[in-house]
Amino acid sequence: MTLTENARAPQQDRSRETRDLILETTLRALARIGWNATTTSVVAADSGVSRGAIQHHFPTKEALMRGVLEYMYEGRNTSEFSISAEVPEGVDRFEYISEQVLDYYASDHFKAALQMWTAAIGDAEFSEQLQMHGDKLARAVYDRVVVVLNADTSDSRTHRLIQTTLDLSRGLGLADVLRDDSKRRQSVAQFWADELRSIKQLNEPQ
Amino acid sequence: MTLTENARAPQQDRSRETRDLILETTLRALARIGWNATTTSVVAADSGVSRGAIQHHFPTKEALMRGVLEYMYEGRNTSEFSISAEVPEGVDRFEYISEQVLDYYASDHFKAALQMWTAAIGDAEFSEQLQMHGDKLARAVYDRVVVVLNADTSDSRTHRLIQTTLDLSRGLGLADVLRDDSKRRQSVAQFWADELRSIKQLNEPQ
Repeated sequence: MTLTENARAPQQDRSRETRDLILETTLRALARIGWNATTTSVVAADSGVSRGAIQHHFPTKEALMRGVLEYMYEGRNTSEFSISAEVPEGVDRFEYISEQVLDYYASDHFKAALQMWTAAIGDAEFSEQLQMHGDKLARAVYDRVVVVLNADTSDSRTHRLIQTTLDLSRGLGLADVLRDDSKRRQSVAQFWADELRSIKQLNEPQ
Repeated sequence: MTLTENARAPQQDRSRETRDLILETTLRALARIGWNATTTSVVAADSGVSRGAIQHHFPTKEALMRGVLEYMYEGRNTSEFSISAEVPEGVDRFEYISEQVLDYYASDHFKAALQMWTAAIGDAEFSEQLQMHGDKLARAVYDRVVVVLNADTSDSRTHRLIQTTLDLSRGLGLADVLRDDSKRRQSVAQFWADELRSIKQLNEPQ
């Protein structure tokens, strides 16, 4: 490694950190105040990064939003939103997974995606990207539910009930946008856990 | 009635008709191209009403959107979206109501409301109006399901399943925004009809 390369590395790290800070701040702003209110000025004020630096990384609002979309779905940034397959000791696995999935779709992650989802309606390319990421995420959540519940998805009703968990979660996430719907969501999660109990599990005792 | 009053009446009718045409056109545009793209120019082009006349009825975009919100939830304009309590001859009532509710939330009415829902996030007063109308509509849909299914809502699971029908419908409505999700929705409606069959009905034979 030459001296020049050595000197460049920390600078690249700093640039990457700044970029991530901008994207994280934009994501939170989208969830909190929506697409139109999320301007460079707001992101600058919230992040402490100068408007010039933001514009250097993302010359247009479109570039910034595409950046956020990629950022949200990058593996290393989804830990906050990811649902662990490890059910905590002493917790009912049906209640655990029902609550986790319902809460996931009420996160800032979903709310930011929802803002993009509605704003993207006229933009075919952005729509397609959103759909692709959304589908990938839905498959990951579906698979996680299957593993936690040891579900036999060759059983059609079992497959459908798990799929319904995702659609239901999106509906509840939407209800949480204009008000704090967490109390109702918690009681729905309890109810839904009991519905999920009727699925077919693999290797069940006959 | 004086001559002047006589002459004024048809003019008021025309003004009302123009107002309704503007609002109906705006609603369709919101559902199709979203909040930001729905401009006075677009509404003028789609409706054939001049920009001047639109601005006379609705001086600001805010006024236009509040107008659409009220228009959507006025009794006389909801016939297209209303769900009849009359189950067509020979049609299973569970399949009927499941399909009707799921399709309702994939209508232009829901899509336009969704655009407002996400755009209203920073506007406390508009948010409150949206919530009030949304709650009123949800209660009306809930009541319609109860009547069609002759449901005993004193049974907690029955109440919950019907409530879940609404949240599920919102989630499916969202999925229909960026693509035509009607085929999947139809198969979910079939599945959900079978789930609803397990509710408690009033005056069931013991």
